[in-house]
Amino acid sequence: MLRNLYRTTSLAARQSNIHYRTLRLASTGSKGKVLTTDRINPHIRNAEYAVRGALPIRAEALSKELQTNKSLGFDRVVFCNIGNPQQLQQKPITFFRQVASLCDNPELLKAENREDLLKLYPQDAIDRAELLLKHIGSVGAYSHSQGLPHIRENIAKFLERRDGFPANPEHIYLTQGASSGVQNVLQMLTENEKSGIMIPIPQYPLYSATLSLINATPVPYYLKEEQDWGLSVAELKKSVDESRAKGVDVRALAIINPGNPTGQCLTEGNMREIVDFCKAENLVLLADEVYQTNIYKPEQRPFHSFKKVLRSMGEEYNDVELFSFHSTSKGMIGECGRRGGYLECVNIDEGVLQQLYKVASISLCPNVHGQIMTDLMTNPPVEGDASYELYNKEVNGIYESLRRRATKLASCFNGLENVTCNDAEGAMYLFPRVRIPNKAIEAAKEAGVAADAFYALKMLEATGVCVIPGSGFGQEPNTWHFRSTFLPEEHLFDQFCSNIEKFHKEFMNEYRD
Amino acid sequence: MLRNLYRTTSLAARQSNIHYRTLRLASTGSKGKVLTTDRINPHIRNAEYAVRGALPIRAEALSKELQTNKSLGFDRVVFCNIGNPQQLQQKPITFFRQVASLCDNPELLKAENREDLLKLYPQDAIDRAELLLKHIGSVGAYSHSQGLPHIRENIAKFLERRDGFPANPEHIYLTQGASSGVQNVLQMLTENEKSGIMIPIPQYPLYSATLSLINATPVPYYLKEEQDWGLSVAELKKSVDESRAKGVDVRALAIINPGNPTGQCLTEGNMREIVDFCKAENLVLLADEVYQTNIYKPEQRPFHSFKKVLRSMGEEYNDVELFSFHSTSKGMIGECGRRGGYLECVNIDEGVLQQLYKVASISLCPNVHGQIMTDLMTNPPVEGDASYELYNKEVNGIYESLRRRATKLASCFNGLENVTCNDAEGAMYLFPRVRIPNKAIEAAKEAGVAADAFYALKMLEATGVCVIPGSGFGQEPNTWHFRSTFLPEEHLFDQFCSNIEKFHKEFMNEYRD
Repeated sequence: MLRNLYRTTSLAARQSNIHYRTLRLASTGSKGKVLTTDRINPHIRNAEYAVRGALPIRAEALSKELQTNKSLGFDRVVFCNIGNPQQLQQKPITFFRQVASLCDNPELLKAENREDLLKLYPQDAIDRAELLLKHIGSVGAYSHSQGLPHIRENIAKFLERRDGFPANPEHIYLTQGASSGVQNVLQMLTENEKSGIMIPIPQYPLYSATLSLINATPVPYYLKEEQDWGLSVAELKKSVDESRAKGVDVRALAIINPGNPTGQCLTEGNMREIVDFCKAENLVLLADEVYQTNIYKPEQRPFHSFKKVLRSMGEEYNDVELFSFHSTSKGMIGECGRRGGYLECVNIDEGVLQQLYKVASISLCPNVHGQIMTDLMTNPPVEGDASYELYNKEVNGIYESLRRRATKLASCFNGLENVTCNDAEGAMYLFPRVRIPNKAIEAAKEAGVAADAFYALKMLEATGVCVIPGSGFGQEPNTWHFRSTFLPEEHLFDQFCSNIEKFHKEFMNEYRD
Repeated sequence: MLRNLYRTTSLAARQSNIHYRTLRLASTGSKGKVLTTDRINPHIRNAEYAVRGALPIRAEALSKELQTNKSLGFDRVVFCNIGNPQQLQQKPITFFRQVASLCDNPELLKAENREDLLKLYPQDAIDRAELLLKHIGSVGAYSHSQGLPHIRENIAKFLERRDGFPANPEHIYLTQGASSGVQNVLQMLTENEKSGIMIPIPQYPLYSATLSLINATPVPYYLKEEQDWGLSVAELKKSVDESRAKGVDVRALAIINPGNPTGQCLTEGNMREIVDFCKAENLVLLADEVYQTNIYKPEQRPFHSFKKVLRSMGEEYNDVELFSFHSTSKGMIGECGRRGGYLECVNIDEGVLQQLYKVASISLCPNVHGQIMTDLMTNPPVEGDASYELYNKEVNGIYESLRRRATKLASCFNGLENVTCNDAEGAMYLFPRVRIPNKAIEAAKEAGVAADAFYALKMLEATGVCVIPGSGFGQEPNTWHFRSTFLPEEHLFDQFCSNIEKFHKEFMNEYRD
């Protein structure tokens, strides 16, 4: 079964490459075809996105197989390859769904239904839906390409509350999740293979995949695992100097904070150094802040937005250009399927804002349901609202449970032979390091896959747990990792951990040097 | 006021150019900025999208101004620049919204709420929501990147009913509206400025804008206005030969049927010729069929899908590659804000399908609400369902009204001095030709705008009606057109027409040679 998978994939072990090949069948193009794998846009062919690559595709197949074949040795596939909380039964926030459902069915809001409606909906959900519809008109209409003005105004107020600095609704763009915002900005920033964007290693592969698609150059900088995945400005400097010496036009620095897949949370001091670095090196700062509420050590490592840090450094930093990205998919909301999010432009040239609007307009508008969820995320019920207590209970319940699971999984990983794992200060993932025995590395070579892909595939086949090999995110050469979410349901979590422990022990027994 | 707009736009009159410049402020980049209009990706800078360009931006401003200034000479701005039915008060399909709202709020489906729920929802809406949720799980979870298998299966059944030929769910990709599907396929098909895609003139500017963004070459072919915007294969042949002689690698032919902005509907015979042409010239066929139910002369000009025509031509055509695009934004549904749609791949290489999946996976998944609407569009209530009668009444009511308005607007345009207009056989638009007097052409030159942009801006300022100049879609050199939807509310339609008549008379009186 594994063999068979290997033949249909190109999981080549490429130490020097930060990428990880996704499933790619050999082209079966009949002579007559115009379009074959070999003839398509090579930048698409070269793009790689492991989070939904070979491992998840195999996991989907196993999941299907389970419906008929009960003898796989596990009774369900656990998708830890992607931060998709509601797929793993995380309950949506009741108030958010109530408002969204009312916006979809305005007939319910008619006076004659009010009595029946109040049996099913709280007053504040009705009020919010009526307010939104007053500004939206119909959720079935294209909105302003930049997102509804009313919602952008609410986001701006949220940002002012969060940071203590003014925010301009005209500098906010609603997006289909954070991904499309990142993609539009990366495309705007680059021109050809000479254009470089600094990305962390390990990184979330949206960045490397998008840079492949647009034929720009990733300029990697390494996070320091032994310093809790810390970010050193000396490392940034080394990286930018090396690339510029090679003739790369390095234009921007992408920071993921809290980190994905690494879960670290930057200190304010470190962030100021980074802003200084961008100013000195003339780099646009891209701040991927989608995990800003997934903070598990709030005392030692609270979240600071780059907007707040930048503004707090004074007017002489008003030439440092910043794009900050946020999403409704993460946090305690986990509304991934909604594709909602926004980006804020700070110190961005007026003409560039116009170009960003034009690009948005070619796709007409971000989906209105995603925009509604973004409004709710940034303006939840407040003290005194009918839904406040329930909202609070739900959010805190999810938060505390995520925190418990993060700790439990880290200690599970740290208990494994030859495995070390930093705690998650934020985000939804752990990125443990596995010292894979030489015997296993040899076996992987033989099978034509990276050693960490070999390990992860074995884990999947043995336990049904789908994690992503470190080579999908990039890692120091000759180190091996994998990324796992800590999202499996809490009542199944001990079983989940013990399945991994059992697999790992057997793996080590088979391959120990 | 006009002057002021001209200064902030670059509506240059460029006869030879199929494009039409969108608003672009001169770069105000302070010396310190990395990112200015002059330094961004030039392919983005060069992209043009008139449907949401200078005219609509000016219309938005007037709309805002109306809130305080009642002396503009009109009491509302009428947005005829874009096919956005619900923005102009078209009522959504009740059943569709009921199902969507229930999917958003599964709490309502709990047994204890059933009694109250049945006062607000029909049984078949409840059943459909339960069925969908059984397959979706939560609308807040990322779905399969290609779209939910259950929904793809339903779309395949719809296609089999529509065409009488089998459809494969594995060859269907849910998309965020048709636009993102078109963009992914165009990107897949092209590599650099040598790659050419045949597009009609006039065209929907998604095509020219996307080709600019990906730096590929549009290969224009002209539709024959005097033959009801007919498509001649001789013209296609002339166009492909000329481009190939210039060294362009022409890879695909894009057809919009029914036409946008031109509203024509192709005959089956013509479509067979087109398929033969693609086979002979080794071109991938891109069929933009989003207006397939907007058919106003069903007897003379019914809709035929390219899939049906291709399959009906027999097995020897199984090497003709086809991508067909559909959307929930048009038809009688008009759920534009939902961003739902799909593409079907016919005779496409297996490896290419894998690449298409990979590209989709980088954006994670199309928003689930758009997927739900696509399921409803392709599987509406049927005879015997509780909601069938209402559904039928709503759809027919919208259809008949659109048909009446299409006829009324065409005769309004044909009644204007120096204006001729073909009837709409399909879609949502008319594309009248205006013989603009030389005096007006001179005035436009002086103002630095295309003559049709000058005419459209005058119309906007005088009536509040926002149409798009023909130069935004492309037109035969030295001809002038504009595109207007016929979507304004029927009870206001006579007023709408007489405002245009009054403006046109005054325009002619001012500029008649």
